[in-house]
Amino acid sequence: MKVAKFGGTSAASGEQIKKIKSIITSDPDRKIIVVSAPGKRFEADSKVTDLLIALGNAAFANEPVDEWMEKISNRFFAISEELQIPKSVVEEIEQTIKEILSSNLPEHMKMDALKAVGEDSSAKLISAYLEISGFQAKYVNPKDAGIIVSNEPGKAKILPESLPLLADLREEDGIIVIPGFFGYTKNGQLMTFPRGGSDITGSIVAAGVKADLYENFTDVNSVYTVNPTIVQNPKEIRSLTYREMRELSYAGFSVFHDEALIPAFEEKIPVCIKNTGNPKAPGTMIVADKKPQEKCVVGIASDTGFASLYISKYLMNREVGFGRRLLQILEEEDVSFEHAPSGIDEMSVIIRETQLTPNKEETLIRRIKSELSPDMISIDHNFAMIMVVGEGMKNTIGIANKAAAALSEANVNIEMINQGSSEVSMMFGIKADKLHQAIQSLYRTYFG
Amino acid sequence: MKVAKFGGTSAASGEQIKKIKSIITSDPDRKIIVVSAPGKRFEADSKVTDLLIALGNAAFANEPVDEWMEKISNRFFAISEELQIPKSVVEEIEQTIKEILSSNLPEHMKMDALKAVGEDSSAKLISAYLEISGFQAKYVNPKDAGIIVSNEPGKAKILPESLPLLADLREEDGIIVIPGFFGYTKNGQLMTFPRGGSDITGSIVAAGVKADLYENFTDVNSVYTVNPTIVQNPKEIRSLTYREMRELSYAGFSVFHDEALIPAFEEKIPVCIKNTGNPKAPGTMIVADKKPQEKCVVGIASDTGFASLYISKYLMNREVGFGRRLLQILEEEDVSFEHAPSGIDEMSVIIRETQLTPNKEETLIRRIKSELSPDMISIDHNFAMIMVVGEGMKNTIGIANKAAAALSEANVNIEMINQGSSEVSMMFGIKADKLHQAIQSLYRTYFG
Repeated sequence: MKVAKFGGTSAASGEQIKKIKSIITSDPDRKIIVVSAPGKRFEADSKVTDLLIALGNAAFANEPVDEWMEKISNRFFAISEELQIPKSVVEEIEQTIKEILSSNLPEHMKMDALKAVGEDSSAKLISAYLEISGFQAKYVNPKDAGIIVSNEPGKAKILPESLPLLADLREEDGIIVIPGFFGYTKNGQLMTFPRGGSDITGSIVAAGVKADLYENFTDVNSVYTVNPTIVQNPKEIRSLTYREMRELSYAGFSVFHDEALIPAFEEKIPVCIKNTGNPKAPGTMIVADKKPQEKCVVGIASDTGFASLYISKYLMNREVGFGRRLLQILEEEDVSFEHAPSGIDEMSVIIRETQLTPNKEETLIRRIKSELSPDMISIDHNFAMIMVVGEGMKNTIGIANKAAAALSEANVNIEMINQGSSEVSMMFGIKADKLHQAIQSLYRTYFG
Repeated sequence: MKVAKFGGTSAASGEQIKKIKSIITSDPDRKIIVVSAPGKRFEADSKVTDLLIALGNAAFANEPVDEWMEKISNRFFAISEELQIPKSVVEEIEQTIKEILSSNLPEHMKMDALKAVGEDSSAKLISAYLEISGFQAKYVNPKDAGIIVSNEPGKAKILPESLPLLADLREEDGIIVIPGFFGYTKNGQLMTFPRGGSDITGSIVAAGVKADLYENFTDVNSVYTVNPTIVQNPKEIRSLTYREMRELSYAGFSVFHDEALIPAFEEKIPVCIKNTGNPKAPGTMIVADKKPQEKCVVGIASDTGFASLYISKYLMNREVGFGRRLLQILEEEDVSFEHAPSGIDEMSVIIRETQLTPNKEETLIRRIKSELSPDMISIDHNFAMIMVVGEGMKNTIGIANKAAAALSEANVNIEMINQGSSEVSMMFGIKADKLHQAIQSLYRTYFG
């Protein structure tokens, strides 16, 4: 049995939904579908969920909601026309919105219910479309599916009691269509998920039914070995482990949010990234483990926008707790860091530049000078971080050598190496202006 | 003007002291001498300071002191006989000890005064010997020299007010002989230094008189490029910076205690390590800076006996303060660490194994599991750390490559690389059983 989740772009229009139908019905194992609200059809378009939020804000500010209601209705109307679904479905959506607004729920709960209308309506539309196309399909509300969440508005988590309830979905005949993004507390209160909402639903449903495969349909063919803006037409990654995916996500490779994968991860459900626009392409598999002979460098992630805070103090390593006190200052100043390599009398902290406003830099330097009395302190900007990722790296002789040689060949000075802390990656810091030649050289070395 | 300090081995016997005289008088610039108490003449010998401490302990326990007094007298008697110095000098020493014991100072101050007798007597003997050999020489007590220290028994520090007072020593004619290891508080109370005592005196005197050179006479020819027990007859280091010396000391290269150098370091006095037994050998210079073209790998330090504490937790880098809390646990458990490389979901802490008793390991693991809930935690033993040291390393393209290639050639797996935190070194972690082939390969690469 396969669980397939379709993101906002895939549900944005009738034309896209026709592809969804085609994908689902081409494989009888695709029994359970999780869908997002209609997303953008083109760059300047609006996501339906954003329109719903705007409607809610207008209502709570006692401003007219007609403009927003019209935009929302038009989106669903366009979809239903293209798919030749009865108009009544759209009228039901308008009715639902009105009922929410006029209910006596507190504002934050009204907003949550409004936000959920996008996914919920999407699921109803798609289910209706499958039915009128001649397939046995039914919409299942998350409450009936068994998606029970904690009572934490804005950061609801799936509760373990969902799993046995979800398992019952296996027994259903026909195609099940479930809206993503929301669940219900034990008291029956609707609660939306935080970021990556539909991914979380898809993942928990796949885990609950112990699916053979969880397919995440998005708008890219695969996860690539390197950033396609740095190397043209790079090789695609056919398969990677959860750990490798996590390391590559670090630098923006993510096609979904990491936390969303946890339920699938814990039940060891394989995940496949696929492209709605090109469903026959094999996509990228994400699996729990790899066989030893498959272990090698799987991809290279990179990102710019890092700064390095450098401190030196003669006899630093004789001061017990020096490193911890430095980290404490950063924590109190709400500055998170990527990595803090320390030497004997020196320490660096790698920080994302977005956190270092001129004010914050000044505060950090002032506090560090005052509380730690360093001999020297400086903040260097414009670093890039490169992650060379792959299972089995830790025990492969010569692997650091290969990477260092590639960088040396490209005439790139290595400012920082962090290898050994992770079992599946090595981190290199270089000056950001050298990033492209560094990545190109590494790509040639590992994938050329 | 040169300041020369002679350590315990150099002052251990008449024969050794003759070498001191020969060294001093062969260079008219050697105007100020700092000396230690007589040390060991052979492996099983006693240091005179240890004999004085034993005498003090016996006295305070109301046990007879005659045995210890006899041993101490015999040492000084043997020296005075060989150097043909009048016996009265030795009788003075016995008298001084008796006066200290019978004084009404509190016990800890008596002990301090006893400990200082070794250096003080050594300086008096050597000064007397220079005089009867026909040279203009005089003993100068640290109080008269101007060595003022803080009132912190056991960890006295030189106070800045010493420097102008010491400057007056430049005006003196003839050779000045100053005992190392102790100074006086502003109130005139005698106070011994902590570890490295005579080195501290030598360094502050060199700084105070703004010496052109501070010569540290010991029992090795130089600092070597690698551990001579791993590579036979390794090249000697002719010159290194203070920073390079500090990094190499990390792994036991130290011929003196690092803190002792601080006064010389701050006044940028060059230091030279020389061998009393081979004074014509050039020794090793320690300087404030190097010219850029001189910058290259200067030495390779190494040490075994490290363990690696490894922790992994999915989404670790989303938990603000995780790293800081780990360091806090270590600090509270009184465990200091060398280095804490962190990845995205993983962290390692490199710790000297001597700190990890089975009890301590168990406590750390228990606390970390309980307070940080990692997915995985393990402690691996038998690591060795290698430091490749040299100014200018940070900006030299290909330097990590060279080291990694050398290790790869020797078939050594690199468990950890820490490069970039220090401007003058790179740190590699490997399994301890591979250390010798690793160092030999690195030696060939950099010095072969």
